[in-house]
Amino acid sequence: MLITFEGIDGSGKSTQIELLRDKLKKNNQKVSVFREPGGTLVSEKVRELLLDQNHVIDPVTEALLFSSARSQLISEVVMPKLERQEIVILDRFYDSTIAYQGYGRGSMPIEKLQELSKIASHGLVPDITFYLKIDIDQSEKRRSNFTRDRMENSGVEFYRRVIKGFDKLAIQESRFVTIDASRSVKEIEKNIWNLVADQLK
Amino acid sequence: MLITFEGIDGSGKSTQIELLRDKLKKNNQKVSVFREPGGTLVSEKVRELLLDQNHVIDPVTEALLFSSARSQLISEVVMPKLERQEIVILDRFYDSTIAYQGYGRGSMPIEKLQELSKIASHGLVPDITFYLKIDIDQSEKRRSNFTRDRMENSGVEFYRRVIKGFDKLAIQESRFVTIDASRSVKEIEKNIWNLVADQLK
Repeated sequence: MLITFEGIDGSGKSTQIELLRDKLKKNNQKVSVFREPGGTLVSEKVRELLLDQNHVIDPVTEALLFSSARSQLISEVVMPKLERQEIVILDRFYDSTIAYQGYGRGSMPIEKLQELSKIASHGLVPDITFYLKIDIDQSEKRRSNFTRDRMENSGVEFYRRVIKGFDKLAIQESRFVTIDASRSVKEIEKNIWNLVADQLK
Repeated sequence: MLITFEGIDGSGKSTQIELLRDKLKKNNQKVSVFREPGGTLVSEKVRELLLDQNHVIDPVTEALLFSSARSQLISEVVMPKLERQEIVILDRFYDSTIAYQGYGRGSMPIEKLQELSKIASHGLVPDITFYLKIDIDQSEKRRSNFTRDRMENSGVEFYRRVIKGFDKLAIQESRFVTIDASRSVKEIEKNIWNLVADQLK
């Protein structure tokens, strides 16, 4: 089973991913968590490239670099695990590419990005995608505690477009489950666990 | 004007590119030469990643990394130069991706690679592409003098498929000029210069 988490920075993805992983482990499931971009030697090197503030990176290049990191993660790590019937949780997947690089930066037409995503993911589609939805003000509040890197210096208007992108995907893709992430951590945890437990049966 | 050189390793591209550049300079043309992958800070870092023998790189990842390096080179350097009416010579361009990653490695269907190439090149098409054609034995002889890196350890069968790929492209694309690269350096130089001089008029 492949579970992905999506949403803008500060939506609480990391917290919920940890909680879900612990719960799955308690239920004797083999589970791994990966963040994008990263998870392999090559992907981590691409990540460094992407996050380095000294690099001027063209939006098309950015989308291609994310895709490279993803391709390596999927082929080297995720696919073998899924073949062994393990559970994989991804902290962001191609929906983030569509939302951030497509809707956010307008780097290229959405259809081209979708084509690129298909290539990079080796045709893999998540079984369930949790979209943790918060508004821009909540995100701003939470993000102020974090060290801001290159990806996070893009401004409020950028994030508005990204949210619009996720909202569209949530309508188009039946695997999307939209979670109101303004609620308490406990409530969200329960909501997510019920849905995952359903799928496991 | 954008001029690209294609052909397998050992076909004499570098020699001919240098000769053409010198001739263009003598004719008071502003000319720059770039090799792929490379030519920008980000592209050179991607190049290091690709050539490092310690990296296990999936064929799809490889194609995406080459595309990232290309995208950055085109947007950051090549397009601004072409807009200033300068001449750019590329030591390999997307035809190499099609021939090496597509026909050589079979990393993905040729149409997908072509789609990817369009994205990575920002829609740019060469005005003329010199395909320096030699057979596998000549290539082997010449390459034995070089330090072999990751890209060059792929064996004879691989190179046969790459040559087949270039041959197909030469038929499909009218911008291709196939040069018999078994002839003397002088003859080839003259052949190439006549064609470039024609285009300059």
